[in-house]
Amino acid sequence: MSAGSVGIVKTHYHHLSGGLPLESGQKLDEVTIAYETYGKLNKDKSNAILILHALSGDAHAAGRHEGDKRPGWWDIVIGPGKAFDTDKYFVICSNIIGGCKGSTGPSSINPSTGKPYGLNFPVITIGDMVNAQKKLIDFLGIEQLYAVAGGSMGGMQALQWCVAYPDSVRRGIIIATAAYSRPQHIAFNEVGRRAIMSDPNWNRGDYYGGEPPTKGLALARMVGHITYLSDESMQQKFGRRLKDKERYGYDFSTDFQVESYLQHQGGAFVKRFDANSYLYITKAIDYFDLKKNGSLDEAFRAVKARFLVISVTSDWLYPPYQSKEIVMALSSNGVDVSYAEINSIYGHDAFLLEGGQLNYLISNFLTPKLVKDVMASAVTIDENSSIEAAARAMLDSGVSHLPVVSNGGTISGIVTAWDISKAVALKYTCLDEIMTRNVVTIRKCDTLEAAAAKMELHDISALPVVDDAGHVIGILTSDGISKLIGQHK
Amino acid sequence: MSAGSVGIVKTHYHHLSGGLPLESGQKLDEVTIAYETYGKLNKDKSNAILILHALSGDAHAAGRHEGDKRPGWWDIVIGPGKAFDTDKYFVICSNIIGGCKGSTGPSSINPSTGKPYGLNFPVITIGDMVNAQKKLIDFLGIEQLYAVAGGSMGGMQALQWCVAYPDSVRRGIIIATAAYSRPQHIAFNEVGRRAIMSDPNWNRGDYYGGEPPTKGLALARMVGHITYLSDESMQQKFGRRLKDKERYGYDFSTDFQVESYLQHQGGAFVKRFDANSYLYITKAIDYFDLKKNGSLDEAFRAVKARFLVISVTSDWLYPPYQSKEIVMALSSNGVDVSYAEINSIYGHDAFLLEGGQLNYLISNFLTPKLVKDVMASAVTIDENSSIEAAARAMLDSGVSHLPVVSNGGTISGIVTAWDISKAVALKYTCLDEIMTRNVVTIRKCDTLEAAAAKMELHDISALPVVDDAGHVIGILTSDGISKLIGQHK
Repeated sequence: MSAGSVGIVKTHYHHLSGGLPLESGQKLDEVTIAYETYGKLNKDKSNAILILHALSGDAHAAGRHEGDKRPGWWDIVIGPGKAFDTDKYFVICSNIIGGCKGSTGPSSINPSTGKPYGLNFPVITIGDMVNAQKKLIDFLGIEQLYAVAGGSMGGMQALQWCVAYPDSVRRGIIIATAAYSRPQHIAFNEVGRRAIMSDPNWNRGDYYGGEPPTKGLALARMVGHITYLSDESMQQKFGRRLKDKERYGYDFSTDFQVESYLQHQGGAFVKRFDANSYLYITKAIDYFDLKKNGSLDEAFRAVKARFLVISVTSDWLYPPYQSKEIVMALSSNGVDVSYAEINSIYGHDAFLLEGGQLNYLISNFLTPKLVKDVMASAVTIDENSSIEAAARAMLDSGVSHLPVVSNGGTISGIVTAWDISKAVALKYTCLDEIMTRNVVTIRKCDTLEAAAAKMELHDISALPVVDDAGHVIGILTSDGISKLIGQHK
Repeated sequence: MSAGSVGIVKTHYHHLSGGLPLESGQKLDEVTIAYETYGKLNKDKSNAILILHALSGDAHAAGRHEGDKRPGWWDIVIGPGKAFDTDKYFVICSNIIGGCKGSTGPSSINPSTGKPYGLNFPVITIGDMVNAQKKLIDFLGIEQLYAVAGGSMGGMQALQWCVAYPDSVRRGIIIATAAYSRPQHIAFNEVGRRAIMSDPNWNRGDYYGGEPPTKGLALARMVGHITYLSDESMQQKFGRRLKDKERYGYDFSTDFQVESYLQHQGGAFVKRFDANSYLYITKAIDYFDLKKNGSLDEAFRAVKARFLVISVTSDWLYPPYQSKEIVMALSSNGVDVSYAEINSIYGHDAFLLEGGQLNYLISNFLTPKLVKDVMASAVTIDENSSIEAAARAMLDSGVSHLPVVSNGGTISGIVTAWDISKAVALKYTCLDEIMTRNVVTIRKCDTLEAAAAKMELHDISALPVVDDAGHVIGILTSDGISKLIGQHK
């Protein structure tokens, strides 16, 4: 599979006619949505996938803007040959309302005053963000999305889509998130907001045209950033290494590299993000609670999509048990849901970094891989051959599993390098004495998942692929399957 | 065991003659140490235990100050009949230098200027704190401490004591801490410091007599507080409950109880703590690194104390694996070390809250419990008795294990309620047919630990206690052992 880039892309802007009623009861009269698309919408408009971004994300999910060095924020999984394969799918990503990356937010001009909204911007919710996206999807003429997908706050939006618009979504990909914000989430968000609001430059949100509250916003980002990493990844990345010094400074300048890194992250963030947007978006996250009458089961009653729920082993902000809670509630409604944990030390940030595992899991969910996509041509040996001939065949072809055939191709057994070595030890000479006769086989149109399960069940590492007549047409090895993950890295 | 209070206590102050040389190379000329003591120092001065406090602690560890409603910060484990039993031990707790609770720190008067030090106070280390404590212990005439004990930063000081003064400490009790600060610890501390230093009122540390940086310090405390709790304990304590409202406010006032709680914690903290002390103490924590030439094994080479290392299952700030690293390094030096995990949802704060488990673990380490302390008098039955008689004896005495004796008291077996029920099922009539003959026994001066291990090994819940002649003198049951933990709660 060749994995490429979608190339140079542009952000589009769509003005929602009729404005947007909000969950608070207020209404936003003028709403612009910034969005990008990659790939082509097919004739029956059935191949659209909506990507949802996290707190500080934007519409630029893949490819490059003219002149940019760095690609969009989820370029690792979007593009030709990648999980969100732009040769097959029409991929859409829009900036959330309340943000500061082109969609209407607190830094936008309030049409009724001609000045930036500031705190006059109404408080919005994850539901409001999704309702705005629905209007964009309607505008694009798409009745049903092939999938919605997102990590962190993007995962919340994806869940909200499946709940609010059950007929408009076929698949939900929900990564590193929760179905409701817990007090620890709220607590970290509140600290970030306090940091911004304690900065005198914040001036009750009215700082546009003046000095923005950069110290407060940087502090908020520093706290947030710690929660996105794991203790282990920080230990590997920074340890206790000092920054540009040989010994402790014994003062309050920067001593450690990790301090310098956080300060840099904070400083870079204030250049690209609006402090008021940070307040509004964290508030939307706090308010997010899919539970209905206190029950997540009840929240998912009307859901029609199939789900892939993914968590990260080292994510302590949205730990695996919070994903499992989603899986349990979906399952209890009879919803078709797969669950996977990304094995990673990168903590919450893994959903932006672990390209190999993400591509494998997501592409398999969107477009299940079949045995024929991965099987290799099989070297076989006739059952009347000698053990020496079998050993030579293995050596020549560099394989350790040989299907044994009779009558010109029908499978009658399998012999492995281990069998050969057993024959040497026991002075056997006939293939017949060492080959396994009850050989487990697979068909070319079975899914890889089924094949992998068969291998695990029988504790074997290769499966001959046979046709209806029992003829060997290929071989599937665990090496072949694991290479699939490798290809996506 | 009756557990009481040490009653009304007072803080004492000791002035270190000759000042204190610091690890930075600087020197503090005038140093006062605030301390409290509970219990009596014995004649040979061998029963002194030094308690070390955490970041925001003080010398007031137990009892009450005149007029106070709340006791000292570790009253749950210090007092007559508690783990740090003031009927047996002379317990000392001193406020760290750099603090603001009576010992010399940045808010103290700088003798060379007549004004508070502020940032002119030298940066201090955990080693400096311990060196100051050593001078206090010398002043009290104590050559060797029976034990040092502390949690969190108190645990760091306890470790430092055992390493820096190996001949002066017999036992180290190290709770919920690490042998070196990791980048995640440093990152959280740095955020706290940035919050304080970003507050305009901080004024480069020169705020005494003016408005202190309360917003910054409150913010630092809020971040810290989140790290002391677990996600699960916050979920149980706050859930998503709103604060004095029925529905979301859709504004930036306080919505959730957890926000209100954190704000309260921040607000209360600034009334009792000095912002500059927060800077100095977190810096001392960051600098803490016991490793020698990169090796913790090497750091513990000269250690002579015995150790009890305790971690908390839900502590994500100082997780169990960081305690286990200490245990491994001590073990590899042949040091006698016990390790235990407190089973708790309270996170890091559990070392201040889990009185039952702490008292059990610590008192057993300081003063190992023996079988005779817990054994009950045994009801026995003669081996010539009928099954019916055995059943009646069980019923009358409310026990489910009866040692079977012969020749007027010598143990010959044991019979349980389960055996009796078996006899009924199989229509046996003789005790002989159902009693267990290879009975596992224990002696009264064996430790409870050994007894518990024996029970686990043989999967039994009662052990007859026998004397040298094999006479049954009591019985030890798992109920009796578990009640010990209950008593401490």
